[in-house]
Amino acid sequence: MSMAEQAALLLDRLQRRRPLVHCITNYVTANDCANILLAIGASPIMADDPEETEEIAAAASALVLNMGTPSRRKLEAMIRAGRRANEKGIPVILDPVGAGASRLRREMAESLIRKVRVDILRGNVSEVSFAAGLASREKGVDVSEADRGIDRTEAALAAARRLGCTVAVTGEVDVVTDGRRTARIRGGSSMMARVTGTGCMTSALAGAFAGAGAERGDAFPAAVAALASMGIAGETAFEKAGHLGCGSFHIALLDAVGGLNEKSIRERAEIEEG
Amino acid sequence: MSMAEQAALLLDRLQRRRPLVHCITNYVTANDCANILLAIGASPIMADDPEETEEIAAAASALVLNMGTPSRRKLEAMIRAGRRANEKGIPVILDPVGAGASRLRREMAESLIRKVRVDILRGNVSEVSFAAGLASREKGVDVSEADRGIDRTEAALAAARRLGCTVAVTGEVDVVTDGRRTARIRGGSSMMARVTGTGCMTSALAGAFAGAGAERGDAFPAAVAALASMGIAGETAFEKAGHLGCGSFHIALLDAVGGLNEKSIRERAEIEEG
Amino acid sequence: MSMAEQAALLLDRLQRRRPLVHCITNYVTANDCANILLAIGASPIMADDPEETEEIAAAASALVLNMGTPSRRKLEAMIRAGRRANEKGIPVILDPVGAGASRLRREMAESLIRKVRVDILRGNVSEVSFAAGLASREKGVDVSEADRGIDRTEAALAAARRLGCTVAVTGEVDVVTDGRRTARIRGGSSMMARVTGTGCMTSALAGAFAGAGAERGDAFPAAVAALASMGIAGETAFEKAGHLGCGSFHIALLDAVGGLNEKSIRERAEIEEG
Repeated sequence: MSMAEQAALLLDRLQRRRPLVHCITNYVTANDCANILLAIGASPIMADDPEETEEIAAAASALVLNMGTPSRRKLEAMIRAGRRANEKGIPVILDPVGAGASRLRREMAESLIRKVRVDILRGNVSEVSFAAGLASREKGVDVSEADRGIDRTEAALAAARRLGCTVAVTGEVDVVTDGRRTARIRGGSSMMARVTGTGCMTSALAGAFAGAGAERGDAFPAAVAALASMGIAGETAFEKAGHLGCGSFHIALLDAVGGLNEKSIRERAEIEEG
Repeated sequence: MSMAEQAALLLDRLQRRRPLVHCITNYVTANDCANILLAIGASPIMADDPEETEEIAAAASALVLNMGTPSRRKLEAMIRAGRRANEKGIPVILDPVGAGASRLRREMAESLIRKVRVDILRGNVSEVSFAAGLASREKGVDVSEADRGIDRTEAALAAARRLGCTVAVTGEVDVVTDGRRTARIRGGSSMMARVTGTGCMTSALAGAFAGAGAERGDAFPAAVAALASMGIAGETAFEKAGHLGCGSFHIALLDAVGGLNEKSIRERAEIEEG
Repeated sequence: MSMAEQAALLLDRLQRRRPLVHCITNYVTANDCANILLAIGASPIMADDPEETEEIAAAASALVLNMGTPSRRKLEAMIRAGRRANEKGIPVILDPVGAGASRLRREMAESLIRKVRVDILRGNVSEVSFAAGLASREKGVDVSEADRGIDRTEAALAAARRLGCTVAVTGEVDVVTDGRRTARIRGGSSMMARVTGTGCMTSALAGAFAGAGAERGDAFPAAVAALASMGIAGETAFEKAGHLGCGSFHIALLDAVGGLNEKSIRERAEIEEG
């Protein structure tokens, strides 16, 4: 079965099961993450207090840990939720937003990776490299700069092997690998870089697909499906609203994710295997 | 005077007085709540630090307590604001978001109801039942599941009698009751469930109407007006943007609320009394 | 060189340099602030934990301190970031949201102004007056009320002289002054008052322009450029979407900021000097 076919079936399963996705996330893009989860057919719950995250995670089908606007309190909330998710076999997605931007973020990424078994690590090449302990430059804020000279596939493979999980590196062409299988996903639009949170939304979608019921240890097709979905939606949104501007593109992106179905994935996903 | 007529007059009063509505709310939908308050003609102020909530509440015309993304700190902020609002006769709206989802949320709802005199309790059937201490199931996350088998009118009546306040239960058909009077409100669109925060926005609108100057103890017509407004706006938004997708519907909902006036309420509100 | 010409050149520089703008801001409008920064061509980073704000600020080209949804923890984060920015000559923008609304906010504004050298103070007439210690009324929540009887130019001049910085007072006609030079900027739309966060977004833009590389001590043209940009975008958005409602206007505003370029500023900025 081709990866596109697998992604299509996974979307169908997601839309029938409506997995509850627990997000511990930042306040900048939380609204978009909740809305994209509803759009694809999942059910979001946002909760970040250490007092309740274990309990919420235990009731969810997937857990998304997003490191934007970080704090020690949120780290504690994430560790508690992540450990509980691990105990119950609930897939964990880590989005190491700005992992190289401060000591707090580097320590947070390191701590999460040490204490929680992550199923999917999703970020840009700089974030993934920092999170996997493969980069040590102090300033990781400027992604585009950090991007230069680092090959996305190499970085993803190195991170996947070091962490033993699926790694999804998004960029002009997305790369997903679990160290054995690798997929390159085309699509999207350059306007996605002009809307905040498209990365966070992609990670949320990875949670939705991982929570749709793929067996544990099979996070790879979930990550591929999430990136392929976002790629198709980005293209559709650009066709519909790219000429109007970034505000309209943002709304059209949510519209497009809401319009995805098994058929659109099957026909439009651009996934190159191997 | 019919309830629709009362709602129309209340909207007119709201738009002339522009009540200041203090929201202690979650970061997922705070932007939408502020925008819907501006759209209807009210004035929002968001503040959630225990150090300032008493003071802000005292200057407001209504106080909306929204339990999304909860914490003990926010509970303290809510109790302080709520007590001050009670002293000054400022109406208090409670939205017990996900009340059954964790021990923290159950305790928070219980504590708020014990310590603050709530004028309007607004939620889905599961949230309202938990907040009123009428449900004890541990997992209240999945609303649609919890919804099954619980009659909205019965739940609203039981909660209203137990708490001695107006209860608004939203769902396919909304129910508002203060234990004596009951109204069923039709309208809206199934797409409202595919946009995060439509419940939070409805509660914010209840604050705007309650703050428009209805006498204390007369929260019932304010809740009816809020739900009727949201119902009409949901229908209008669906007509305009339902075919475009959930992102466009979300924006059209804000547009539609901004377009409401006395006349549209009078002509389009679908309120069944008794 | 006219102020419009200066603003046009500054936008061109901004769009070539893509300055990183560190925002310590509120959760109500953080998404809009990030999106407007991306739209104009800057790069946003939101971070508000005292543990990391010094480090993030040091790597940024401008620092925007927004006092919405305040707390002592955020104040500490702001002071640390602000002092570091001062050491490094990075411009600091202060938006004293609701400065008169509570003791916490008054103390916060006072503390920030005492401990951090602010380059641009941006607010409505009431906020600016409170932040500059020129107002002492207890209730500063209702801006429109506080606005009555206070002349925007006088208030801006008094604040600029007291604080020794550039002050931008937004309202029907915006005023920018550094005590010596003064500019009045027309444009915008009355609908901007019906969308939350247009003030916050204007302050974020001031950060982008200040970070574009104007020499230190030359915050004045940056503030003028930010207000002129917002004025043009507000007009464009109103033409395109004003008839649709406040939700659509909000999106069109982001579209319009994304469409700004050197030429549009040169041709459409309405800046009156002196």
